[in-house]
Amino acid sequence: MATRQVALAIDIGGTKMRGALITESGDVLARDDIPTQAAKGEPAAMKRLAALLRRMNAEVPDAEPVGIGMAIAGTVDPETGLFYNPPNLPAWHDTTPSLDLGELLGLPAWVHNDASLAVLGEYVYGIGAGTKSLVMVTLGTGVGGGLVFDGHLYGGHRGYAGEIGHLVVDSAGPQCACGGRGCLEMMASGTAMARIARERLAAGEPSLVTKLVRGDLDKVSSEVLVKAEGQGDPLAGDVLRGAADYMGVGVATLRSVLDPEIIVVGGGVSRNLHIFFPRLVASAKAHAMNVDKELCPVVPTVLGDDAGLLGAAALAWQKLRG
Amino acid sequence: MATRQVALAIDIGGTKMRGALITESGDVLARDDIPTQAAKGEPAAMKRLAALLRRMNAEVPDAEPVGIGMAIAGTVDPETGLFYNPPNLPAWHDTTPSLDLGELLGLPAWVHNDASLAVLGEYVYGIGAGTKSLVMVTLGTGVGGGLVFDGHLYGGHRGYAGEIGHLVVDSAGPQCACGGRGCLEMMASGTAMARIARERLAAGEPSLVTKLVRGDLDKVSSEVLVKAEGQGDPLAGDVLRGAADYMGVGVATLRSVLDPEIIVVGGGVSRNLHIFFPRLVASAKAHAMNVDKELCPVVPTVLGDDAGLLGAAALAWQKLRG
Repeated sequence: MATRQVALAIDIGGTKMRGALITESGDVLARDDIPTQAAKGEPAAMKRLAALLRRMNAEVPDAEPVGIGMAIAGTVDPETGLFYNPPNLPAWHDTTPSLDLGELLGLPAWVHNDASLAVLGEYVYGIGAGTKSLVMVTLGTGVGGGLVFDGHLYGGHRGYAGEIGHLVVDSAGPQCACGGRGCLEMMASGTAMARIARERLAAGEPSLVTKLVRGDLDKVSSEVLVKAEGQGDPLAGDVLRGAADYMGVGVATLRSVLDPEIIVVGGGVSRNLHIFFPRLVASAKAHAMNVDKELCPVVPTVLGDDAGLLGAAALAWQKLRG
Repeated sequence: MATRQVALAIDIGGTKMRGALITESGDVLARDDIPTQAAKGEPAAMKRLAALLRRMNAEVPDAEPVGIGMAIAGTVDPETGLFYNPPNLPAWHDTTPSLDLGELLGLPAWVHNDASLAVLGEYVYGIGAGTKSLVMVTLGTGVGGGLVFDGHLYGGHRGYAGEIGHLVVDSAGPQCACGGRGCLEMMASGTAMARIARERLAAGEPSLVTKLVRGDLDKVSSEVLVKAEGQGDPLAGDVLRGAADYMGVGVATLRSVLDPEIIVVGGGVSRNLHIFFPRLVASAKAHAMNVDKELCPVVPTVLGDDAGLLGAAALAWQKLRG
């Protein structure tokens, strides 16, 4: 029987491990997921994951796995595969999940953190397909993203490049846990939106938000703000527009410094808000250098939650094809 | 007689054309300059430049020119050599100086704008020698700079990357001629310092600067501010420190996004001010992500005015060695 070569793509988070069989052209031939059960340790999780992948392969018998790409939530050394101090998988500190899974399945394996691989996935199989360079900004609880230059993730000298959440958008802004101040994550992330709204509510501004959280300001979140904005609440709308404006400032800086072919905006918050994206683009335009220079397109992501999984496949295929 | 291969390095500005014979290891065997006489046109200038280079070569007879690298003040297409809309050399619009000089001398020739080649020069023969990636920020009348990744100037998708003067450091800052607002050039350049000082003087703040310019606020410049600061003038010191602080904000953003091996700071204003550099580094540290992450070194340039010329040589050698 003729076979189709596939990469085994893995995306490991704190609660769920996802696996897929993905061809070089990005076709997903099978996919499934199981609970991570992180506390039971990394070796047990890799054994269950190997079993899952074997079952999936059995259901697509013409698929021939040739390598493994793994996206994982936390800091991992792509060269050695060593995973360290993962906030969401603390029991896995100092393990090598990709190597262990590769050994169980007898396949070469490569690993990178999930945020970076989401960028690579979007570049290879998503909105970036066919481009040469891409910058991605993701807006969720935090602000993340990454850089692709000439087809490859750019990690910089120490592997820290692409910390887009920590570019400074307001030099007088508040101190961030990163050690800096006024960075994008402090001004525009879901956490920042909640903080800003909470401060204004605590100062006595009237808002539907107070009712939605039943007076418990600890329950204010970007989701609540999106809901309140949808019902016409001025404070919520103001906070969300402020965040979109700062995101636009960050996009403007990325464009002036890096001139990528496209800038991709993703993440939970930006997806959920009809006013968010146009506002962000308008702010980027107002802040970006544009005299005699066309602005690079700013576009939304298309892969959504699959970006990390497809990025894991892209990593494996890049390594396999040299 | 044994010969030493040299690149003919050229740096063309609005008033002066400089030439040098430079070996691959960066030894300058000869150097000279002549007035540009820009209004007489590009063909006449290239003929005089060719004659200069022939004379220089005659004085170093064992130097064997193998190619030409040219740095030029203005926008030039590195692929076609076409020079267009140069503000300082208006009569040269739509000419190809590098190709013309190459033809006159029978040598292959390459060209790039002088600001980018100053970065390449600093990378190959200056403070960046031995590093893999470098970001440079230059502070003069404007703010410029450039990016070197993996040994080559990074131009981005449309050739506009490295516009470091236009990264946003204060989203509420004033409108810039670039079309954006609050960019580094509007908050920290020599021109910005003069503008900010002028506004404060016009509002009636007392300062030695008023005396130094004999009451003519049009004469306020970064040079005058440096002079006044040296004599203990509080307003001048304040403006200069403010600019250094914003430069530090820009450096912090470049570090978080790009994680280069080093960040190099150059340009006339930063050279002339003993307080400037430490203040800039302190601001960069206060604004940059640094939890669990070492900060990349921020260092001054070493090549000074020779950076463009050495960058032109570096360009020629990079092209010659493929």
